[in-house]
Amino acid sequence: MHILIATPLNEQQEARMLRIAGDDRAHFIGEVPDDATVHEVFGQCEVVFSNVPAHWLTQTAMLRWAQLESVGFGEYEHLDWDQLGQQITMTNMAGFFTAPVAETALAGILALYRGIDEVARLKPLKNWQKDRQRSKLRLLQGTRVVLGGYGSIARRIAALLKPFDCRITSYDLPGTDADINTTEELDGVLADADVVVVALPESSQTVNLFDQRRLAMLSSTAVFVNIGRSSVIDESALVAALQAERIGGAVLDVTAAEPLPTDHPLWDCPNTILTQHTAGGTIDEIDRKITFFENNLNRYRSGLPLESVIDWTRGF
Amino acid sequence: MHILIATPLNEQQEARMLRIAGDDRAHFIGEVPDDATVHEVFGQCEVVFSNVPAHWLTQTAMLRWAQLESVGFGEYEHLDWDQLGQQITMTNMAGFFTAPVAETALAGILALYRGIDEVARLKPLKNWQKDRQRSKLRLLQGTRVVLGGYGSIARRIAALLKPFDCRITSYDLPGTDADINTTEELDGVLADADVVVVALPESSQTVNLFDQRRLAMLSSTAVFVNIGRSSVIDESALVAALQAERIGGAVLDVTAAEPLPTDHPLWDCPNTILTQHTAGGTIDEIDRKITFFENNLNRYRSGLPLESVIDWTRGF
Repeated sequence: MHILIATPLNEQQEARMLRIAGDDRAHFIGEVPDDATVHEVFGQCEVVFSNVPAHWLTQTAMLRWAQLESVGFGEYEHLDWDQLGQQITMTNMAGFFTAPVAETALAGILALYRGIDEVARLKPLKNWQKDRQRSKLRLLQGTRVVLGGYGSIARRIAALLKPFDCRITSYDLPGTDADINTTEELDGVLADADVVVVALPESSQTVNLFDQRRLAMLSSTAVFVNIGRSSVIDESALVAALQAERIGGAVLDVTAAEPLPTDHPLWDCPNTILTQHTAGGTIDEIDRKITFFENNLNRYRSGLPLESVIDWTRGF
Repeated sequence: MHILIATPLNEQQEARMLRIAGDDRAHFIGEVPDDATVHEVFGQCEVVFSNVPAHWLTQTAMLRWAQLESVGFGEYEHLDWDQLGQQITMTNMAGFFTAPVAETALAGILALYRGIDEVARLKPLKNWQKDRQRSKLRLLQGTRVVLGGYGSIARRIAALLKPFDCRITSYDLPGTDADINTTEELDGVLADADVVVVALPESSQTVNLFDQRRLAMLSSTAVFVNIGRSSVIDESALVAALQAERIGGAVLDVTAAEPLPTDHPLWDCPNTILTQHTAGGTIDEIDRKITFFENNLNRYRSGLPLESVIDWTRGF
């Protein structure tokens, strides 16, 4: 069988992938060019690893399994999966980014609470502020945290917060096991929140959930964290709240425009940590992804059910 | 009875202290000037709150109890406590800084692991680095942590690290309940440590414990944290290791010279977070200290044993 590896690998990783492929034929394309040569190769492949352009999937009769290297799969949602699903199984990397994203969320929150972003800014200026800094610091211990979205990342954050004895309220859509399930209940807890962490997927029910009205409910010391999708918040309203210091600060891994344009007001917002969409990253990210694929490939070869199969009938 | 309050308070705090003093007479001196007027006041006081100059204590017959507003009491050690101890009880604020210092330690470690210090540095430059940053980030989960010193702060750090499933080895002097008690055992665990946290008091057994030889045992990715005393490490050797990137980074709350002179090489060391001796700070630090004093004052008035009495016979 032929396998297309459509992600840039270094020499070591390519060698490892060849060992994993064994008797199967692995084809490597570092980037994803949309040209005829690649299509010829792709047309022979039964398996593809990485996110190829959506329209490719409708142009091959050979493909049986596509392993994405992301959790999100929005770019494939518009395809006719009633039909395509009979030919192709798509798996994502659900859970893959849980640990790093949760660690970055806590790192960002603690940085604002303990002034790490400020001392990092002061260091190149060789500016010793000690007591002025010291008297601004807060304790995370015992604070009230609202988790907007209660999937694997939010649950991991709740676990990391456990020793801090925070009073956590989780919100998620009806039908989930979060503490609260309605936007009215969410409205009821925002004013008292010290920290709000947004980790919701993008959907018609979540877009603009944190609009100007809800952001205005936050207290002047509240820290707002978004590690989910930028569309879930009204970014302009958030910028205005940060600029006027009507809220305590923000940790944003995602922004509507990425890379963030140099003239974007977020760069100048006070008490704001921009993690530049790095929250999911680790030094061994590619190796961990290869391991994820290897595990699923072994299952595929053995005829076992694949892990993290996308269920298109659920209607995302 | 007369009480001297020798720490700067704002109007609200002074009003609160007057309520606490009640029928007793509270004298406020914001700073600690060494002049005759103050001595006249001090000479009437049975109780003093805050750290007055050591020689004052030998010049009053009235004083019965001195409540320090620090954990350290090194500046009073040279006094003749065999004699003075029969007149004056000294209490410190043991445990007072445990929570904030532990939170700052974790905040600093997570900042290095998840690149928060780097994105804080990039923000004023409006410099979007995403993937270059992302591929450098590490997971704290599952790392090997050596706690050098196993007092209340180190124990709190161990508690905060619990959800990260770190493999923790605690070191402290013989007679403590740390995992290891000898410097030979310490030598045995340094090479494999991902994070070393130093939280030891200053004593003849700890000064220069982390000397050039021990710092050289650390791996190229090890993060070195000092939230104890600067004298416990060889600062020049640490600077050299950081400059050459022979270790992964450092979080330093204490430095031999404070404020750190602008020409000090630590300002320019890479992967180094200088928290500027703010780790013990909280926005309500003074109020929390007043509460600590109030509690002990109530005990003093009721004839109950005071909390956090310094035992001079232990020989620090």
